[in-house]
Amino acid sequence: MADPIELVGAHGRAGRSTVEVGGAEIGPGTFTLIAGPCAVESAEQTLQAAQMAVSAGASLLRGGAFKPRTSPYAFHGLGPAGLRILSDVRAATGVPFVTEVLDTRDVDLVADHADMLQIGARNMQNFALLRAVGTTRRPVLLKRGLSATIDEWLLAAEYIAAAGNENIVLCERGIRTFENATRNTLDISAVPVVQKMTHLPVIVDPSHSGGRRDLVLPLSRAAVAVGADGLIIECHPVPEVALCDGPQALGPEDMPELAALMKDVPRLAGRAVA
Amino acid sequence: MADPIELVGAHGRAGRSTVEVGGAEIGPGTFTLIAGPCAVESAEQTLQAAQMAVSAGASLLRGGAFKPRTSPYAFHGLGPAGLRILSDVRAATGVPFVTEVLDTRDVDLVADHADMLQIGARNMQNFALLRAVGTTRRPVLLKRGLSATIDEWLLAAEYIAAAGNENIVLCERGIRTFENATRNTLDISAVPVVQKMTHLPVIVDPSHSGGRRDLVLPLSRAAVAVGADGLIIECHPVPEVALCDGPQALGPEDMPELAALMKDVPRLAGRAVA
Amino acid sequence: MADPIELVGAHGRAGRSTVEVGGAEIGPGTFTLIAGPCAVESAEQTLQAAQMAVSAGASLLRGGAFKPRTSPYAFHGLGPAGLRILSDVRAATGVPFVTEVLDTRDVDLVADHADMLQIGARNMQNFALLRAVGTTRRPVLLKRGLSATIDEWLLAAEYIAAAGNENIVLCERGIRTFENATRNTLDISAVPVVQKMTHLPVIVDPSHSGGRRDLVLPLSRAAVAVGADGLIIECHPVPEVALCDGPQALGPEDMPELAALMKDVPRLAGRAVA
Amino acid sequence: MADPIELVGAHGRAGRSTVEVGGAEIGPGTFTLIAGPCAVESAEQTLQAAQMAVSAGASLLRGGAFKPRTSPYAFHGLGPAGLRILSDVRAATGVPFVTEVLDTRDVDLVADHADMLQIGARNMQNFALLRAVGTTRRPVLLKRGLSATIDEWLLAAEYIAAAGNENIVLCERGIRTFENATRNTLDISAVPVVQKMTHLPVIVDPSHSGGRRDLVLPLSRAAVAVGADGLIIECHPVPEVALCDGPQALGPEDMPELAALMKDVPRLAGRAVA
Repeated sequence: MADPIELVGAHGRAGRSTVEVGGAEIGPGTFTLIAGPCAVESAEQTLQAAQMAVSAGASLLRGGAFKPRTSPYAFHGLGPAGLRILSDVRAATGVPFVTEVLDTRDVDLVADHADMLQIGARNMQNFALLRAVGTTRRPVLLKRGLSATIDEWLLAAEYIAAAGNENIVLCERGIRTFENATRNTLDISAVPVVQKMTHLPVIVDPSHSGGRRDLVLPLSRAAVAVGADGLIIECHPVPEVALCDGPQALGPEDMPELAALMKDVPRLAGRAVA
Repeated sequence: MADPIELVGAHGRAGRSTVEVGGAEIGPGTFTLIAGPCAVESAEQTLQAAQMAVSAGASLLRGGAFKPRTSPYAFHGLGPAGLRILSDVRAATGVPFVTEVLDTRDVDLVADHADMLQIGARNMQNFALLRAVGTTRRPVLLKRGLSATIDEWLLAAEYIAAAGNENIVLCERGIRTFENATRNTLDISAVPVVQKMTHLPVIVDPSHSGGRRDLVLPLSRAAVAVGADGLIIECHPVPEVALCDGPQALGPEDMPELAALMKDVPRLAGRAVA
Repeated sequence: MADPIELVGAHGRAGRSTVEVGGAEIGPGTFTLIAGPCAVESAEQTLQAAQMAVSAGASLLRGGAFKPRTSPYAFHGLGPAGLRILSDVRAATGVPFVTEVLDTRDVDLVADHADMLQIGARNMQNFALLRAVGTTRRPVLLKRGLSATIDEWLLAAEYIAAAGNENIVLCERGIRTFENATRNTLDISAVPVVQKMTHLPVIVDPSHSGGRRDLVLPLSRAAVAVGADGLIIECHPVPEVALCDGPQALGPEDMPELAALMKDVPRLAGRAVA
Repeated sequence: MADPIELVGAHGRAGRSTVEVGGAEIGPGTFTLIAGPCAVESAEQTLQAAQMAVSAGASLLRGGAFKPRTSPYAFHGLGPAGLRILSDVRAATGVPFVTEVLDTRDVDLVADHADMLQIGARNMQNFALLRAVGTTRRPVLLKRGLSATIDEWLLAAEYIAAAGNENIVLCERGIRTFENATRNTLDISAVPVVQKMTHLPVIVDPSHSGGRRDLVLPLSRAAVAVGADGLIIECHPVPEVALCDGPQALGPEDMPELAALMKDVPRLAGRAVA
């Protein structure tokens, strides 16, 4: 790399790091499933999605209270009410959650509720936001930008680390290419490439990569096999009525296959499930 | 477009709009040169760059007080002190200025100083920031994201308009492709395409597109010829010592050719210079 | 460049080269319009398109007898009969023509008829074909591949030159990117970049770049302004019934504007029209 | 798809097809390893690479006698002498081989020697060559073009089928994107996407995808897991002195890990090895 990544670079470390999130671990010694709805729509929908996630082996929940949407007229999430729902679902299930923060002014509020803060793909080079989450004590899930090079992605992580927070998990979620058969192009090679360059854990988001429900399981298997440290997957009790990204959400009928994959991880990847 | 652009779309308008910035106009009836340094480094450097810009025909200055940089260890601008320098240079030259805002928490501060607020390429889908500048009374320069489709770019403008501010100028500044001979690939076709879809003015940034000083003039001529409403160009009194983007900055010796091009605009494009 | 371009590189040359095609010149001292139909469909259609081309200022005709098509079930051209039609139209108009060759086995046949051989974008790295046209005495029009870097494009030209034929004209025709508002993304910067790297002439194809009739004139103006050595444009007497690429073909009603642009070239670019 | 793929489309077929190559099978019921050197350099080097391939579980050899190279001054293979070496190695090992054909004029010659004809990425839309291999009785390995959409790739296969030859195996070998950490970006999602659209087998080339030796095994595991029907991998007895693509070739010390992966395929993918 042309620019230095003093803090997140692999140099001078004996092994890769493990990040602890509300009792769940993400790192080289385990394989971690994060699952839940794209957006928090209601208490009931979120709880049901969380129960689906747990049934499949998730040790961490996901769900969006603040949603970045391409159009100003789309559903943008429930905001603070969504955070309260997520907290209630955590209390009900005993499972911690990660949720996205979009605005530097909301970082403290989101950090007060969430176990982990997500920086989404569109904010990967929102440097003010990177610095702001870097000053919290919450672990951060840093998604790769749609057209971010691996070097730029690691430098974005370095921003967070340089602000004081090294509890960072990287998430490959597909890049933008000329191919339109999938929503994005999962850059599966990025997982081993990044695992050599940084000590941070690297997980894969097969939901946004493909943008298609039928690709989630095949891409999840590829992620396990290539050596990823975990998965983040969208699920919904009734994908057909989801307010956001329904076509890529797994439904209740898909959970057994995901659960079976998670049970197979020790055999496939030589790792325990987190 | 799949999503509606009620406010910025071309539909139902007799012609394209003109945006007024501190007395300077950007729109279909004129051709506007915006020029100045990438970053405000000192009062002297900024004043010199502004005088260069004015000598070439600029009616609006540019200069960064808050700089988004790929690395956390790079120069990030002088911040509020940079805004004061820009205000002083405006007083000295009588020419208004545009400067970038990176953080929702800084919008009021920047709007207090600047004549126009810039949303940079990396923040084109920082929706919180789009909304925040939409609530100000300052015109906004909205750069296209590195991998933003034209549809996404117009929806980003719609965010600003939907928040109450329709004084928006779009800026094509190159997209990310496989070609590395240039820093980005100037999508010159985007100018006529966007001018059909929206009533907003569209300008071109040849400096970031090519990333090379030797390409700035040829790309500027192409922009004039294709029908752009203006240019935004980086210049520096001593590009070799610039703290940011020196290789693409025009120096004093390049100003006569730029001035000649501006004088030629009426003949080349059938427009007066703003 | 990592690889050498001994023959087509700009090094050690006093100026850029001019290629002579059946009496027409392409090079730095002139500006050359090549125009005609995408495909030769009939004698009448080809003659009419040629007359349109000449009326607009073309000094070289284009027309496909062998057409590379994405689908095996599309119209693939009239083949040898198309070459005879093109020869007849040359006799009738007195204007030479360029046509594409797709197969090494057809090179001699096409070279017997045509004044210039075109290598299309999809064959830019068909190295056997490059060598084959390099052994003829016909000038070659080498289109840039859809995803070819500038380095690869120049090395493709070097193949032709290394086989013995240095009469090569390069054609920028748009590259494949994520943006779908246009058929391809015209890489207008490639023109000045390549003119520095090689002594060969460089022209622009605004028809395939945009894939839209309404963009042909604006992109042509941009090409003139950026310093291209010519244009290659598709026209058809009745675009609505064209067997190939009708949406991007200029029709009779567009010719006056194209003719006006050509008349303006000396003023816009300081060059005589070839 | 906009264009029809009557012959290679999945419609109206009970299952996916199996292609038989000199006794080896490629299809849904097995998992097939194809391995060997990038280029045939000598009889000894080719035999050694073939023995390495067989030791790892290959049932089909690869090796280039005609090599497409970006530069005209690079090593272009031994040509007919290379074909004779490959035939000798087949006789010595009892294992069939696939080799690339670059020129329509060489199709008969190559088909006389090889068990399977490869169409390389740069020739995926060399339609004359597609038709020519379609008239032979040899099975065809069709690599995806560097910037070919999945639709275009399937239509290229349809060309071969329409010429009379339905024994086609598709090979995903990475696409060209903005990311330069790898030589190409392996589009792992293409495997399940294409397996739904066509009845043809689909294999993965991890060597050209990543362009790095250290990525070959991780990407191979991902290919097995995602459901590919096989792999094509480059190996060389002494990668450091390879005349072509040495940095991505596996060496003797890598064979045990590849052999172990192949032994694991039944467990990982529920398939026998071909």
